Amino acid sequence: MSELQTAMNTLLKVFHSYSGKEGDKFKLNKSELKKLLTTELEIVGKNGNVERLMQDLDLDKDGEVDFQEYVNFVATVTMMMDEFFQRNK
Amino acid sequence: MSELQTAMNTLLKVFHSYSGKEGDKFKLNKSELKKLLTTELEIVGKNGNVERLMQDLDLDKDGEVDFQEYVNFVATVTMMMDEFFQRNK
Repeated sequence: MSELQTAMNTLLKVFHSYSGKEGDKFKLNKSELKKLLTTELEIVGKNGNVERLMQDLDLDKDGEVDFQEYVNFVATVTMMMDEFFQRNK
Repeated sequence: MSELQTAMNTLLKVFHSYSGKEGDKFKLNKSELKKLLTTELEIVGKNGNVERLMQDLDLDKDGEVDFQEYVNFVATVTMMMDEFFQRNK
């Protein structure tokens, strides 16, 4: 398995470990999202407004964050954190 | 660094190792995309029609695939490959 495939499995495993806690097993509700942000991306969970972030992420407006919406968010955070992108703004 | 952050760095490192080869260092042109697909996701590169795939991925129609478009694609492939999603279709 390539490095990229391993990383993809990790993205999914982390998503599923939080989405599977309550309600719809394939989506993150607000409290699951908050736990994921706080535990996995300490930088975001603490001061970020989960409510507003939830609205930004929840593109199909069903009140929950699905895997695709979660991955879009992960990509955005990756770009924000990475000097590879910052250096070349 | 959490597992998720490590996976995010891998997604970026893999993207950058291909996007940095030719032309715009922040985007994948057709040949860079084909090399990435063939090497990192053997399953897609071989028989996939890179031309058509490129058009599907290239949402802003600039003829290249940027990091966000690449991550969207990676998420789609992850969902296709994963029995977690297949079992519950």
